Amino acid sequence: MEYDVVIIGAGPAGYVAAIRAGQVGLKTAIVEKMYMGGMSLNWGCIPTKALLESAKVYTRIKGAEEFGVDGIDLQSLSFNWNNAKARSNRITRKLSAGVNSLLKKNGVEIITGTARIGTDHSIYVDDQKIVARNIIIATGSKPKAMDTKLANAPIVEMEKLFALESIPENIVVTGNHVSAVEMAQFFKLIGKKVTLIANSDYFLVGLDDYLITTITKKLKSEDIDLILNVYPDKYENGEIHVGGFKIKCDLLVNVNSRKAILPESEIPLELTERGFIKTSETFETNIKGVFAIGDVSGKSFVAHVASAQGIYIINTIKGVKASFDSTTYPINMYTVPEIAQIGMTEQYINETGIDYKVSEFPLSVNGKAMIEGNTEGFLRMLSDKKYGQILGIQIVAANATDMIAEAGAFMNVEATVYDVAKTIHAHPTVSEIYSEAGFEAFDQAIHL
Amino acid sequence: MEYDVVIIGAGPAGYVAAIRAGQVGLKTAIVEKMYMGGMSLNWGCIPTKALLESAKVYTRIKGAEEFGVDGIDLQSLSFNWNNAKARSNRITRKLSAGVNSLLKKNGVEIITGTARIGTDHSIYVDDQKIVARNIIIATGSKPKAMDTKLANAPIVEMEKLFALESIPENIVVTGNHVSAVEMAQFFKLIGKKVTLIANSDYFLVGLDDYLITTITKKLKSEDIDLILNVYPDKYENGEIHVGGFKIKCDLLVNVNSRKAILPESEIPLELTERGFIKTSETFETNIKGVFAIGDVSGKSFVAHVASAQGIYIINTIKGVKASFDSTTYPINMYTVPEIAQIGMTEQYINETGIDYKVSEFPLSVNGKAMIEGNTEGFLRMLSDKKYGQILGIQIVAANATDMIAEAGAFMNVEATVYDVAKTIHAHPTVSEIYSEAGFEAFDQAIHL
Repeated sequence: MEYDVVIIGAGPAGYVAAIRAGQVGLKTAIVEKMYMGGMSLNWGCIPTKALLESAKVYTRIKGAEEFGVDGIDLQSLSFNWNNAKARSNRITRKLSAGVNSLLKKNGVEIITGTARIGTDHSIYVDDQKIVARNIIIATGSKPKAMDTKLANAPIVEMEKLFALESIPENIVVTGNHVSAVEMAQFFKLIGKKVTLIANSDYFLVGLDDYLITTITKKLKSEDIDLILNVYPDKYENGEIHVGGFKIKCDLLVNVNSRKAILPESEIPLELTERGFIKTSETFETNIKGVFAIGDVSGKSFVAHVASAQGIYIINTIKGVKASFDSTTYPINMYTVPEIAQIGMTEQYINETGIDYKVSEFPLSVNGKAMIEGNTEGFLRMLSDKKYGQILGIQIVAANATDMIAEAGAFMNVEATVYDVAKTIHAHPTVSEIYSEAGFEAFDQAIHL
Repeated sequence: MEYDVVIIGAGPAGYVAAIRAGQVGLKTAIVEKMYMGGMSLNWGCIPTKALLESAKVYTRIKGAEEFGVDGIDLQSLSFNWNNAKARSNRITRKLSAGVNSLLKKNGVEIITGTARIGTDHSIYVDDQKIVARNIIIATGSKPKAMDTKLANAPIVEMEKLFALESIPENIVVTGNHVSAVEMAQFFKLIGKKVTLIANSDYFLVGLDDYLITTITKKLKSEDIDLILNVYPDKYENGEIHVGGFKIKCDLLVNVNSRKAILPESEIPLELTERGFIKTSETFETNIKGVFAIGDVSGKSFVAHVASAQGIYIINTIKGVKASFDSTTYPINMYTVPEIAQIGMTEQYINETGIDYKVSEFPLSVNGKAMIEGNTEGFLRMLSDKKYGQILGIQIVAANATDMIAEAGAFMNVEATVYDVAKTIHAHPTVSEIYSEAGFEAFDQAIHL
């Protein structure tokens, strides 16, 4: 069989590329060994956010009396892991089926199995040989294995978490990034004892230092033990020995940094130092006509960037000449409150030497935030002092992960703080803090 | 006493103008007969949204079991009106005190009493005479009185609603606009029998017909009786007689269209046909140096537009030459789901003759909407077919009132559907539907 495009891996990079390829009339096949939607849809973005949403509902109910809801017995309330998990599964199954039908609707052939890249643009899936003018590798990533010293601990990775029948009392999460913090807080919200072990050199790397400080304080205030930069010695009698302490651990959740899932290939694929597939600016590998996008390229580990790469690469194949802007996309953290960032961090701006201004506006004086009972947080705008161009925006707020979209809108059209200030924001809304920060950037906020 | 600016009325038009005037160094006084913040803060935007938030929490709890929360006895749940009201009052008191201190912080003198405008730019408050180079009238509006045929009914206006000790069973709401629909749904959400009487010629005037149809269907599905264009005959024995029917009515809530609250003035103020103060494009009345903003000018009845007018007028007084853009601001409705609109409606575009395209993307296939359990709704983008400029955006979604801010951002910088499509939206977020509608506008959505 000969295709215009064969995509290996149906995560948010691969399946979006496939849909787009189908839309523009390319003869397309996608090879996937497990579920449509990949890690993100099946064990990552979607189901973990569904669990967090359940934990948020659980937490919110505890404060419902103040809102005027009578008849809730706080002593009777409990979190039902299996129901939360079942709900999460229903959502992922529905979305995965949705991806499946979108692929079919757009004429994409779905091939189930593990792909091996041969010579002359050939791909083998079990015994089947197919040929493609363009091959897109989107095989994703998986967490690095747990330190061998802890090999005897009750380790789970995210895929296995959703198979557990119950959650024990003492949880240890390992990992440096957003997902590790999210999972640590999730277990705390449902009432567990939680420890987060991270490496301080990489703890939330990429986020603004100001946000990292905010998060660190928040974890402390929630009684989540944060162990930075101390490496565990061993696991013994249900405890992790680390830096002279013993931490009870009934479940060790591996949310470690990720490594590439490399496809087998007869022509060796050139790799980066960190073991990801090396690609050009247009995501081409060392083999002509073979591209790599998403996690496996190591350029970003964010689902929405992977999808954007998927669309970009198909447009490129169709002859659209454009460069891929990989600077302006949101980084989201679905904690309570949520945390979101877009654009440059303050530490990065300091390196560039740009003369900048920081304008911060707190949620504590925002009417809608009071109405929602979510006054913890702020919007922080980093702007060029001379021209007022927005360099970065950071939000801590109950709904920060959706609110950051407005920042994306402004930054994608290279708007200035004047544009933000003069945009009439509806009253009462949390988004009014945008205008306020805009005014503050070149003059003075009204409500501060 | 001589001032640069004296402002009459401390609602969102007046108090924001006063703060801004103080910020730019004008000697400023504000005259208010009641509470800082006006109707919007004390009986309108803020407290009604607080009530609605309480009703939303109450509604959400009923579905909490599916999220994995055990121990809620649905039979025991009830809505505590007094607690919801008390919470709402705490918020308005806090915000009102906040306005007070912001005024003081910015050097604005607060004068309590009713202002009467004299000759030669003089103002009388009781016995006190003050003189001002500029006078800004921001005295607001109040609902039109109920039809005299219903004068014997148990009528409340919003101000009085917050004084009620309890809410009876059978509620009739009268009014044509957003607030009337909001209040009707509020009473329904807390379990009352609700009828909404409106005039179909003015029912939700200003909203897109498509949204009006959506809302009408929603009211019907919620068993809120909507009586359009039939006028009540009388109120007798606890019932309103209307169009041959008798509607039980224990409480008649007046959310009628509004009329100006006019200040006494020795020099007659020229009025519009509808009885509002007539103003120029720069909000100047027939008396030079006397301006009118907010509801009393009849140009808009939206708090955020009033505040924007307040800032505009002070900038004008300070010599800034600019025109006031009154076309691009959100109209929000805090129902379940929420409804928001910005820019042109489809019926308006049809009048202009612009060749346009409608791109709609449903929430039912959005992952984050599924996660939140809020899949009812859509985003609808109206764009110029030739150049792709966005003409209007409409959203029905749980959080539409904040989501519309992104539309404001795009529209204020005159962005196109291409800008919207290429803006990377975080996954999973509800705001992804922006990109999808953007793609749909000039090509094809990915997930549809």
